[in-house]
Amino acid sequence: MSLYAVIMAGGVGSRFWPRSRQAQPKQFLDVFGSSSMIQNTFARLQPMIAPERVFVVTNTKYVEQSREHLPAVPAENILAEPIARNTAPCIAFAAATIHALDPDATMVVLPADHLIDKPARFHAVLDAAVQKAQTPGALVTIGIEPTHPETGYGYIQYDTSTATGGDGEAAPQAFPVKTFAEKPDLATAERFLDSGDFLWNSGMFIWRADSILAAMKEHLPEVHACFEGIGAPADTSVDEIRAAYERSPKISIDYGIMERADDVHVVPGSFGWSDVGDWRAVYERSAKDDAGNATDGDVIVHNTGRCYARSKDRLVVLVGVRDLAVVDTDDAILVCHLDATQQVKHIVDYLGAHRMEEYV
Amino acid sequence: MSLYAVIMAGGVGSRFWPRSRQAQPKQFLDVFGSSSMIQNTFARLQPMIAPERVFVVTNTKYVEQSREHLPAVPAENILAEPIARNTAPCIAFAAATIHALDPDATMVVLPADHLIDKPARFHAVLDAAVQKAQTPGALVTIGIEPTHPETGYGYIQYDTSTATGGDGEAAPQAFPVKTFAEKPDLATAERFLDSGDFLWNSGMFIWRADSILAAMKEHLPEVHACFEGIGAPADTSVDEIRAAYERSPKISIDYGIMERADDVHVVPGSFGWSDVGDWRAVYERSAKDDAGNATDGDVIVHNTGRCYARSKDRLVVLVGVRDLAVVDTDDAILVCHLDATQQVKHIVDYLGAHRMEEYV
Repeated sequence: MSLYAVIMAGGVGSRFWPRSRQAQPKQFLDVFGSSSMIQNTFARLQPMIAPERVFVVTNTKYVEQSREHLPAVPAENILAEPIARNTAPCIAFAAATIHALDPDATMVVLPADHLIDKPARFHAVLDAAVQKAQTPGALVTIGIEPTHPETGYGYIQYDTSTATGGDGEAAPQAFPVKTFAEKPDLATAERFLDSGDFLWNSGMFIWRADSILAAMKEHLPEVHACFEGIGAPADTSVDEIRAAYERSPKISIDYGIMERADDVHVVPGSFGWSDVGDWRAVYERSAKDDAGNATDGDVIVHNTGRCYARSKDRLVVLVGVRDLAVVDTDDAILVCHLDATQQVKHIVDYLGAHRMEEYV
Repeated sequence: MSLYAVIMAGGVGSRFWPRSRQAQPKQFLDVFGSSSMIQNTFARLQPMIAPERVFVVTNTKYVEQSREHLPAVPAENILAEPIARNTAPCIAFAAATIHALDPDATMVVLPADHLIDKPARFHAVLDAAVQKAQTPGALVTIGIEPTHPETGYGYIQYDTSTATGGDGEAAPQAFPVKTFAEKPDLATAERFLDSGDFLWNSGMFIWRADSILAAMKEHLPEVHACFEGIGAPADTSVDEIRAAYERSPKISIDYGIMERADDVHVVPGSFGWSDVGDWRAVYERSAKDDAGNATDGDVIVHNTGRCYARSKDRLVVLVGVRDLAVVDTDDAILVCHLDATQQVKHIVDYLGAHRMEEYV
């Protein structure tokens, strides 16, 4: 068995405006500390997967940035998507490429912009998923043991009847998946949490390349057909890739494969995971002072509590305020209530619709 | 009778940080519209007092800026204070100067940074004050008819027994002053408002130059002695002025003269006056959209109400917030609750005390 990683890095993450821009999406931001999120994702894989077996799938316009952020990854391992077609084509492209290089490959597919606080526990969970994925045809995902009735994540219901261990610190193991559920409303999320057999959908997948290609041929034949001719990077032209993407439907791997396939398994885990979807999530995971303020850069707070403030080159001063995210950049500043950080994407839409592209 | 104006323009107005700086105090800011506050103050006097009879007393470091803002005022009419000594020495300096030029002069003394919405009514009030000031020895001030129990202003209690007119639109007239009161607490302010015989202290004074010089000789002889030798601008050296200021005590005209003198009068008026002391006052006097937002420059508001936001060269975006002042400048940005705008001066103190003078 030979293990490969596929880091999906094609998104823009517009809820991180004004820091995230078309020219600099979330995965390239150093939202926490001095490394970018994609660098953290890469570093986390290093104990298990060597750089030459790490692949990145990203939009053509982010290829250069991906190479700069991950200089250890061979340049040809940065796979360029000419058009965004959601995750199923992205994974088909990577699976076809890796399978052409190594028919025995097992792939760990994961987003570039998630946060994991406890990498050792993550490795143990990943290891159990990799073991399960050795069964031919098995499609494995990682589910996060939920800590609260989050409405911002999808959920996975699994069959707990085969559990072998006790609570909490039991060795990670794979369980059959019963259903995938979309982002729920709060009442539904509370019901999921109470039931004890729902997990958060992490968007991380583990499978043999031949398993996912076979599943794709069965459940998404129109996507599979587009990428059938894709070989190793050295043998594949930009034109072939463009042709595949132009023909491919736009569909997610969850909807196209995971919800339809039979041999689907989940390894539950609890390793301080977050998809860090907005500024509120950044605030919640940042170090705070006694008043609950998380600051980054030249920031002065006075009679202020529960605020996130980030300065770039200028002084940011908060006086008498609470529950705000204040994010300063060279050409734009955001002042947003921490309960409204999901609305930031509307601002990006507005800017795009009102010919203010310089800020997008 | 010949009428002169003295515009007091020596302050820094640190509650307007980050726009107000040591290098650009409040009176030189275009907080409303395109003219600076000192320009508005000057323009308001024009129907009554010609530019060559307008004097400005300001700190030496603001002389150049004062000349630039008021090019119609003769350069020698900008009187430079080498040291800030509060209002009594400032007025002694101006009175000695003007009296040397014109022994029959009547002076209108007023701050550079106040706002008046109804100039015609202001002129009528000022005219009544000027008439009263012709009585030798009379010291006259203007009192603002209070509209709410403001705790940020001083108050003037006056003797209403001599009132001749009806309510509201009666012709302005002067009344004897009973007492001056410092800024009250809220309960006291409410009592003042209920009593009906208290006015806000506007800091505007009208008197003959010889009247105020005589009052100063009686009540503040140590200040009077310092400025006794000051003559017309052409006859007075910078060294003489410096010597006067170095010897002079630091004392306000209210405390040093107005509270002690006998022949003190007030003309009540109601002309949309505000000292615009902080960003909240700017917000309250600004034009607002339906949600109560007042914006200036490139500002986008989304699910936001009752906010003041000013952009200079960058895009300012407010999402899901209320009751904020957001003020952007080249090197600093303030995010302040509208109820906390008085605290901004503490930030300026903090910056000064922490070797961050570049922001002061």
